Amino acid sequence: MKTVWLNEMSWTDVEGYLKKNDIILVPVGSTEEHGPAAPLGLDTYVAIAMAEDAARETGVLCTPPIWFGDSTHHLAFPGTISIKTEILTEYVKDVLRSLARHGFKKIILVNGHKGVNLSALHSATRNVKEFEYQDIFFAVIDPLKIGAEAAKVRKTKEHHAGELEISQILYKYPHLVQKTKLRKEEPDFERRFSKYMKSDLFEGGISIDIPWSSKEQREFTRSGAMSDATKASRRKGETYHNRMVKEMVEFIRWLKRKKA
Amino acid sequence: MKTVWLNEMSWTDVEGYLKKNDIILVPVGSTEEHGPAAPLGLDTYVAIAMAEDAARETGVLCTPPIWFGDSTHHLAFPGTISIKTEILTEYVKDVLRSLARHGFKKIILVNGHKGVNLSALHSATRNVKEFEYQDIFFAVIDPLKIGAEAAKVRKTKEHHAGELEISQILYKYPHLVQKTKLRKEEPDFERRFSKYMKSDLFEGGISIDIPWSSKEQREFTRSGAMSDATKASRRKGETYHNRMVKEMVEFIRWLKRKKA
Amino acid sequence: MKTVWLNEMSWTDVEGYLKKNDIILVPVGSTEEHGPAAPLGLDTYVAIAMAEDAARETGVLCTPPIWFGDSTHHLAFPGTISIKTEILTEYVKDVLRSLARHGFKKIILVNGHKGVNLSALHSATRNVKEFEYQDIFFAVIDPLKIGAEAAKVRKTKEHHAGELEISQILYKYPHLVQKTKLRKEEPDFERRFSKYMKSDLFEGGISIDIPWSSKEQREFTRSGAMSDATKASRRKGETYHNRMVKEMVEFIRWLKRKKA
Amino acid sequence: MKTVWLNEMSWTDVEGYLKKNDIILVPVGSTEEHGPAAPLGLDTYVAIAMAEDAARETGVLCTPPIWFGDSTHHLAFPGTISIKTEILTEYVKDVLRSLARHGFKKIILVNGHKGVNLSALHSATRNVKEFEYQDIFFAVIDPLKIGAEAAKVRKTKEHHAGELEISQILYKYPHLVQKTKLRKEEPDFERRFSKYMKSDLFEGGISIDIPWSSKEQREFTRSGAMSDATKASRRKGETYHNRMVKEMVEFIRWLKRKKA
Amino acid sequence: MKTVWLNEMSWTDVEGYLKKNDIILVPVGSTEEHGPAAPLGLDTYVAIAMAEDAARETGVLCTPPIWFGDSTHHLAFPGTISIKTEILTEYVKDVLRSLARHGFKKIILVNGHKGVNLSALHSATRNVKEFEYQDIFFAVIDPLKIGAEAAKVRKTKEHHAGELEISQILYKYPHLVQKTKLRKEEPDFERRFSKYMKSDLFEGGISIDIPWSSKEQREFTRSGAMSDATKASRRKGETYHNRMVKEMVEFIRWLKRKKA
Amino acid sequence: MKTVWLNEMSWTDVEGYLKKNDIILVPVGSTEEHGPAAPLGLDTYVAIAMAEDAARETGVLCTPPIWFGDSTHHLAFPGTISIKTEILTEYVKDVLRSLARHGFKKIILVNGHKGVNLSALHSATRNVKEFEYQDIFFAVIDPLKIGAEAAKVRKTKEHHAGELEISQILYKYPHLVQKTKLRKEEPDFERRFSKYMKSDLFEGGISIDIPWSSKEQREFTRSGAMSDATKASRRKGETYHNRMVKEMVEFIRWLKRKKA
Repeated sequence: MKTVWLNEMSWTDVEGYLKKNDIILVPVGSTEEHGPAAPLGLDTYVAIAMAEDAARETGVLCTPPIWFGDSTHHLAFPGTISIKTEILTEYVKDVLRSLARHGFKKIILVNGHKGVNLSALHSATRNVKEFEYQDIFFAVIDPLKIGAEAAKVRKTKEHHAGELEISQILYKYPHLVQKTKLRKEEPDFERRFSKYMKSDLFEGGISIDIPWSSKEQREFTRSGAMSDATKASRRKGETYHNRMVKEMVEFIRWLKRKKA
Repeated sequence: MKTVWLNEMSWTDVEGYLKKNDIILVPVGSTEEHGPAAPLGLDTYVAIAMAEDAARETGVLCTPPIWFGDSTHHLAFPGTISIKTEILTEYVKDVLRSLARHGFKKIILVNGHKGVNLSALHSATRNVKEFEYQDIFFAVIDPLKIGAEAAKVRKTKEHHAGELEISQILYKYPHLVQKTKLRKEEPDFERRFSKYMKSDLFEGGISIDIPWSSKEQREFTRSGAMSDATKASRRKGETYHNRMVKEMVEFIRWLKRKKA
Repeated sequence: MKTVWLNEMSWTDVEGYLKKNDIILVPVGSTEEHGPAAPLGLDTYVAIAMAEDAARETGVLCTPPIWFGDSTHHLAFPGTISIKTEILTEYVKDVLRSLARHGFKKIILVNGHKGVNLSALHSATRNVKEFEYQDIFFAVIDPLKIGAEAAKVRKTKEHHAGELEISQILYKYPHLVQKTKLRKEEPDFERRFSKYMKSDLFEGGISIDIPWSSKEQREFTRSGAMSDATKASRRKGETYHNRMVKEMVEFIRWLKRKKA
Repeated sequence: MKTVWLNEMSWTDVEGYLKKNDIILVPVGSTEEHGPAAPLGLDTYVAIAMAEDAARETGVLCTPPIWFGDSTHHLAFPGTISIKTEILTEYVKDVLRSLARHGFKKIILVNGHKGVNLSALHSATRNVKEFEYQDIFFAVIDPLKIGAEAAKVRKTKEHHAGELEISQILYKYPHLVQKTKLRKEEPDFERRFSKYMKSDLFEGGISIDIPWSSKEQREFTRSGAMSDATKASRRKGETYHNRMVKEMVEFIRWLKRKKA
Repeated sequence: MKTVWLNEMSWTDVEGYLKKNDIILVPVGSTEEHGPAAPLGLDTYVAIAMAEDAARETGVLCTPPIWFGDSTHHLAFPGTISIKTEILTEYVKDVLRSLARHGFKKIILVNGHKGVNLSALHSATRNVKEFEYQDIFFAVIDPLKIGAEAAKVRKTKEHHAGELEISQILYKYPHLVQKTKLRKEEPDFERRFSKYMKSDLFEGGISIDIPWSSKEQREFTRSGAMSDATKASRRKGETYHNRMVKEMVEFIRWLKRKKA
Repeated sequence: MKTVWLNEMSWTDVEGYLKKNDIILVPVGSTEEHGPAAPLGLDTYVAIAMAEDAARETGVLCTPPIWFGDSTHHLAFPGTISIKTEILTEYVKDVLRSLARHGFKKIILVNGHKGVNLSALHSATRNVKEFEYQDIFFAVIDPLKIGAEAAKVRKTKEHHAGELEISQILYKYPHLVQKTKLRKEEPDFERRFSKYMKSDLFEGGISIDIPWSSKEQREFTRSGAMSDATKASRRKGETYHNRMVKEMVEFIRWLKRKKA
């Protein structure tokens, strides 16, 4: 297979693929501010890179990416493009339905936009599965969960536009990071949201979910970032990224062996 | 205040409450199978008990409960009543809007249905906050998160209808558990869903989200339960429940001090 | 059967019930102001009491109640929680679908919120029947219709928070009425809405439907009530309530004899 | 004013009208079977005739009619065109919004399709009033309610395609009734739906609402009619129609005097 | 067949028609300003006249018309009644579904509201065909396309309320045009919208689609018209109308010969 | 400006851009079969290439592309991913709203998927403009309209996967065309759909819109193409593409001079 990208193949190529295989990855990202140094498309680049690398390794296909996700709280920063949860849900459902109709039996959403897209992605997969395609295997891969071990490479608290995700972009798309603009910015979440709000996304423990608005976000972070990204490095990105891809590869291999 | 339940008060009582206070709790549960021993309303009873006990302790109000939640995967077991994610989302939004309109400034959803309702509850709170009521403080409390420490009382893997939630009902509503029907049932999640699917809901570590259908659930659990509930006890329920209520109380007290 | 409440039973209990029976009652109420003396949950308490008493008498099941209904015009009074008509409709539809899927063949909505919920309840039952479950028998019971005879016990014009519904609560939930706050309040509907607007909900004759807004309602009734509730009594409540339950029982018995 | 029909006027004519007046009537009907003798458009013709006659008498305007209403239960009879309740509701809402925007302050829906359209019409008027145009006066006129006295002219039980509505068409559109095909057809509602289902739409008394499907309707009425229409006469139609128009005229005159 | 209008027939007449034929026309128009001289219902009259004349000639049926279409940009002129695109789409879908259910196999929408309704009509036909009724033949007829040759009769640039559509009404409904109010009004589209915006709707060539708002429309045309209608004549209307009807007749005849 | 792609910039870069400029292009494509030789992503590549080249030339920004469009009729060919019209509409609306909120005043959709996406794109732009952002200038650019002159370079009838669009890809993305698989396939549209269905998308003249289903499309074209693509050449692609970009550039320059 010369490419893993469905969009680069013709329909007869896909037809050929489906004779032997039934797995496809769908990269879902966002276009939202990631501080003054990192590109607005960061989450989508993460989804693309993770999907592509895992697909290459396992010989499976990827659809083209969904560039716009659920980013309401970032809307006070120019360039952020956000799709409301219920609309993103419906958009993703139609992608799943199209793939299911062609005979893809195992469909994996690869979410580059940690956490926040999950309302839409869980709702889409759970409801399409129950009410339309009971026999399709759906999965949602998210760095917050697949990266539980990989994240240990960080030295600082990881939050939005933090050490880990900046490192990952430095590794895969170094030209897109304006390194001189990387900052340490650590909002005082506890004062605003109580001790039940985590300032590190990978940290376990007791917590309560508290949404904030774009207006509030603009108030508590001047730069749009919420971590110390000055510790980011290409090396850490390599470690973090590759470990997550390794887990994905292991999962996809298991899936290939699994009978439908 | 003689009662914490808004439904038992008249509107003038609520008007009086709002002159001094601005917090309200909204219990959200489900009506879904919890094995042959436990009541279909278990999740709602959990939400009611946690909300009521925390409200009593802090002198805040509770709305009446939402008895029907997002339970699609349980629909193959008689008695389960499930609301699709997008409809539950809209229903909850209208509850939030009504409360916001009256002047409640801090609205806390108390979810007794671990995890699965969160797509709807997050979507509802996040979008109402961003697009309609930027100045209201919303929070979502869920046993899976507020109970991270409390859950340590368990001896077995906690999953659906497991040791912890049965214990909690034994503590608060003992007449609703048919103890002789409690069973140990531990589906082989790993075989079906890979090692990336947790068999203990409170366990951390690397994971991938994989929805299953009601048909599949009927296949992999005969009883509808997915844990060993034979270890449940009133004592454990007391410990587990009270610890979570304690965290809620601490959070509500912090919230009372916080300026709007 | 120890309980009529599905939420108190396990799924195997419901499975057992469905082997011999196929009727279920769904109480639908509201959480809306009922004047300074009566509880916000009045309509739901009415639905619960009527459903429970009829179910006990006939040995059929009840689902847990829907506490939030269509109460837009009461929204200017604190504590009212209203669901927009189209959302309530969809919520009810999913309850009906869940029950139909389990094999309930005769599903009866018991509406405690006279009249106003009917847009949603009729729309839900009519469309689910025609487009999804043609073979299920649906019915909607409403005090305004089942109580046509029972209402004759009143001495004053019955409107919102009036003699009859206060009496019914005095009979079934006496601790929830603050009797000293009962008032006579009779808005001049004719001046505002013409002679075609009835000031007694049970009165027949020529009429025109005219919706009012919450703002208008706040203007034309200081207390939120629209009748003379000072004539309410536990005795009248007993007569009114029991006569309606008697009709329900008769209907349910007929339904039990009817072949699907 | 040469015409009462907005569709026949230019926008400058409407602009002129709005300088002095602010009332408009919106005829809403259905296109559904009315037995072998009467036209499918009967309900819309009724709405048109009532609106036009009342408008002429009072000098107010009418919009063009809505020909397709909520007729799901008639769909097994060829020619019936039905709009689902929630779609009709939204369609009507946009009509109301357009009129409100132009400065119409008193908007009256005239429903020719007795009863069944009311879910949509009530939902549309109530919600547009509460959430969008609090200062507009909305009303819904329906023969079942405005005709409570007028209906006394009937000799037989009035139900679908019955003596009264056939008479009304005989009076206003005689060429549209194929008189030789008029039949007496009286389904046994009691056997099918219990004694709580009325066989006369204008009859008061205890009742329960029971929807039926189009399949059932096809079974219980061969002709599609549900009454004895052989007693219909132009004379009765004249009496019935004119009495209803008289009430409408009285209402509109009251409305003209009423301050906004 | 005495009438082509389904609304004038009984269901048994339609049943008879369907035994031999399977084509039906659905006139869709708008109620929107057409300048000070022409009626608000112009587009619907056009749809009615074209459908009726083609139906008479070919012996096929017409449904009653849809009077309210997608006219957002005209909303600043009194009398315009506009349905939002997505609601009109759903309304039309239900009309198509009803007809398909009865056995109509070839359903033709006749759009009198040039162009703008097409988003809704295309969306409705395309999606109902693909996802619900694959075997029904749908078509959308629009003067902008069927009239490509017929329009050559014009002497001036044809835009909203222009020479051609005024002529067509003068031919079919002369009493509805207030001829003394016809004006020449030619907004400077190029200045506002660039040279890529056509000032003649039938003109080919390079173009870009640019929507304008009702506020803008009110600014760039005082009269609401956008052409020179002073050149309109009954004769031109006859030529224009009849040529389009001739094409429709040819198409319907082809359709009658075509096997389903 | 080093890049025209918003996704490659940080939010502060966009903030800087907005201080001097207010134009942005949004490429919208599809992922649908384009015969055995061309890539599924063809329409999106077209949108990307046209947007990027015009943006480079004029110094304006592009958002990342929307890869999935309205392609229902192609769903019988593997790899096609289609979003239903109403969902695509809502998705695009949220993109427009996000951009409008940041201060983009002139938003141009560049549609690479000729024609079929227009229902959604017109509905989105028209309704967001009228009901939410009256002061934003929206435009929709489509090859079928901007390419009216450019298309003259073709030698054969241009339809799906035809000479022109294949040439355009050969020019911009030559590695994505499998030239040896290019075929001449010309479905007999006239036999299936009458002479009113064009076999050349750029041809003018009398026409009627007739949607077909994916099942039908699979029947009338074996390869999925509907033209003679064997005449495609890089040279023609260059001429065709550059002419369209030239028009876009001219339009954008006009827009830059235009006052908001």
